[in-house]
Amino acid sequence: MSTPFERLKQSCAAEWRAYCEHEFVRQLGAGTLPMEAFQHYLKQDYLFLVHFGRAWGLAVYKSRDIGQLRQSLDSLKAIIDVELDLHVKYCGEWGISEAQLAQLEESRATLAYTRYVLETGNRGDILDLHVALAPCIVGYAEIGNWLVDQRFTVRLDNPYGAWIDMYTSKEFQQAAQAEVDWINAQMADISDKRFQELARIFSEATRLEADFWQMGLTLQN
Amino acid sequence: MSTPFERLKQSCAAEWRAYCEHEFVRQLGAGTLPMEAFQHYLKQDYLFLVHFGRAWGLAVYKSRDIGQLRQSLDSLKAIIDVELDLHVKYCGEWGISEAQLAQLEESRATLAYTRYVLETGNRGDILDLHVALAPCIVGYAEIGNWLVDQRFTVRLDNPYGAWIDMYTSKEFQQAAQAEVDWINAQMADISDKRFQELARIFSEATRLEADFWQMGLTLQN
Amino acid sequence: MSTPFERLKQSCAAEWRAYCEHEFVRQLGAGTLPMEAFQHYLKQDYLFLVHFGRAWGLAVYKSRDIGQLRQSLDSLKAIIDVELDLHVKYCGEWGISEAQLAQLEESRATLAYTRYVLETGNRGDILDLHVALAPCIVGYAEIGNWLVDQRFTVRLDNPYGAWIDMYTSKEFQQAAQAEVDWINAQMADISDKRFQELARIFSEATRLEADFWQMGLTLQN
Amino acid sequence: MSTPFERLKQSCAAEWRAYCEHEFVRQLGAGTLPMEAFQHYLKQDYLFLVHFGRAWGLAVYKSRDIGQLRQSLDSLKAIIDVELDLHVKYCGEWGISEAQLAQLEESRATLAYTRYVLETGNRGDILDLHVALAPCIVGYAEIGNWLVDQRFTVRLDNPYGAWIDMYTSKEFQQAAQAEVDWINAQMADISDKRFQELARIFSEATRLEADFWQMGLTLQN
Repeated sequence: MSTPFERLKQSCAAEWRAYCEHEFVRQLGAGTLPMEAFQHYLKQDYLFLVHFGRAWGLAVYKSRDIGQLRQSLDSLKAIIDVELDLHVKYCGEWGISEAQLAQLEESRATLAYTRYVLETGNRGDILDLHVALAPCIVGYAEIGNWLVDQRFTVRLDNPYGAWIDMYTSKEFQQAAQAEVDWINAQMADISDKRFQELARIFSEATRLEADFWQMGLTLQN
Repeated sequence: MSTPFERLKQSCAAEWRAYCEHEFVRQLGAGTLPMEAFQHYLKQDYLFLVHFGRAWGLAVYKSRDIGQLRQSLDSLKAIIDVELDLHVKYCGEWGISEAQLAQLEESRATLAYTRYVLETGNRGDILDLHVALAPCIVGYAEIGNWLVDQRFTVRLDNPYGAWIDMYTSKEFQQAAQAEVDWINAQMADISDKRFQELARIFSEATRLEADFWQMGLTLQN
Repeated sequence: MSTPFERLKQSCAAEWRAYCEHEFVRQLGAGTLPMEAFQHYLKQDYLFLVHFGRAWGLAVYKSRDIGQLRQSLDSLKAIIDVELDLHVKYCGEWGISEAQLAQLEESRATLAYTRYVLETGNRGDILDLHVALAPCIVGYAEIGNWLVDQRFTVRLDNPYGAWIDMYTSKEFQQAAQAEVDWINAQMADISDKRFQELARIFSEATRLEADFWQMGLTLQN
Repeated sequence: MSTPFERLKQSCAAEWRAYCEHEFVRQLGAGTLPMEAFQHYLKQDYLFLVHFGRAWGLAVYKSRDIGQLRQSLDSLKAIIDVELDLHVKYCGEWGISEAQLAQLEESRATLAYTRYVLETGNRGDILDLHVALAPCIVGYAEIGNWLVDQRFTVRLDNPYGAWIDMYTSKEFQQAAQAEVDWINAQMADISDKRFQELARIFSEATRLEADFWQMGLTLQN
């Protein structure tokens, strides 16, 4: 029998696949993605991470008990104290300076996705917020694993190898699994009506993630 | 079998009774409540109504579809366009001028209850918000009916007769029933975990309503 | 000396012009806009109005006094009780049924703009929210007036004549002016730092409004 | 010339003094406070800290840039990762077990103050939120210093000596000063209207802090 999270993915199977197996992802795996596309993605991902941090701050606020609060704070620290610094450093390796990052224009796809997540979290409760965040956390873990399994993926001498390594790392995979477990626990025994609300959020957020790849690929602002 | 709303009341039966059968209510029914107590209550109830209006504005924002939005707007209009004006007029009959209402200090009990409702609505979703509001809407309807059934209640020559008439009126009773029906529909098939979250909110809001009566009775600021 | 609102517009003069004098607007004025483009716009504008209603509900909640609350409620009622019904009727005249409106997919541009406004309102205070809403209210009034002054604009036998009439109507112009006046009053004597925060919001919202026209023109989802 | 923060305190000088020089504080300094009163305060302060953590999560969400976000996160970590654990340990020394802390009933004064702060932060922007939090952070630092200067204060063999030591510690004093500095910077050049909004919040939060002492003193629930 499928878990609630599996049912979320099944409820928007086409969108989920369009996101996880996006052309940007494929070219990244094959090592053929134009450098400009990757750099554009990296820059916007910096802005994304800042709003992602805000989203975990919102999750701290929305927590119904100290357990949820501590868990949200752990995710917030992982983003702001660890990932953001790693990202800045990684951007540096790709020739993007911190000064550039501080003055970026936010692209439409970044704005649309981040504000959708934050607004959904404000409108609903902490579960709505997690479900809006899940396509990012869980999707990146699935994408990493999927790429490793593809024949077209190049692991040696792939300029994007470090990206694949990061999202297939034990730490990231465990964090993604913990998120899946938490959502499954929260969604246990929910009503059909509630499932439909959450499925819609999951589907819309998944579509916005695919748009984020598309933005990278086409260098859209 | 009991409805979800009945189960909410049963989950805090002592608190619900302490609120609905409060000494303030009894003295109001008997017509023996000191005029100063009623005036103090009326003044704070004005401030309460303003925040209650804000709560329905929040419900409009939190709506998940146009049906919920229109329903929330109807409640908002009932409070701000109808009840608030009636309240100002009624206050005038009790010697409280609009100028006085505009300069009131908010009592602790008013502040505690109103901010609890609004914060609970912000933290959770539209159902959390409704459950926090329910002790007020549904409780007043029950209190009106309960008073009518009590031997100590005086209907003729009771200075507070108009208050009893208002909350036993067909319009108010229907609005309260509509709220119960909506909550029952929303709570159908919810998980035990979700019920416990909502029961806690209902219980806390009920306690804060009883504190509001107590404030009136003891003229607390 | 320029008013605060004029300074907001000047701070993003290019974006403001790109929005107000957008190709969609020009073709609408000339009566040459493809019917499909207008219909696509009308459909998405329906979804926009629902979220716009939610935004005014948020303004009711965010109000700092009863005056602000009543003003926000007036705007909310204007959107939900008047404009939305007119819009449904107008859509009907363009062959778009209510059943269709109820099942629309939200386009990216609609989602981006509406969630940006709502999230900005949640993050900031009631003034941030109004400034995010202003490009819509005030911009449509300016666009109407601008079109009337253009030589290319066709007033007779223009299929989009009713649209121009609506936004140049005395009622709409007065509502837009009232919004400008309120923002000017709120922005009087604000610090430079605060002006910069608001100017950024105004500029981003203006860009998202231009994207909304672009969506109509290119039939984007 | 006085700083903005000094003007906030002057705008409610009587309330500020009633809070900072409260009978609870005096008895604590003199070492004559009944143990039950201190234990009651300690227990409620545990619940307060949890909501205080939520408030800093809200500040992370409300941040307008990465600098504000990191600063809010630092405060959040100080509360949840450091203070809360110290508090649990300190409660243990006073015979209050973690199991007891996990099952506490929230007193009216705790609920009123915490929800007021959180709701004020939701309604307004990050500055409203900080001003609502300031009486706690800055007040405790002032109270510590004030106690050290009073002739009635006992430093040796005072059962509450550790409390005084904590809030007069270099770390806490610096954190409080940093908060004052931040608020002063944010309030530079604000309009009178804005000052009045913030002064009201500061005054109400100060009154709620005094109520918190009173709750401890009288063992109120």
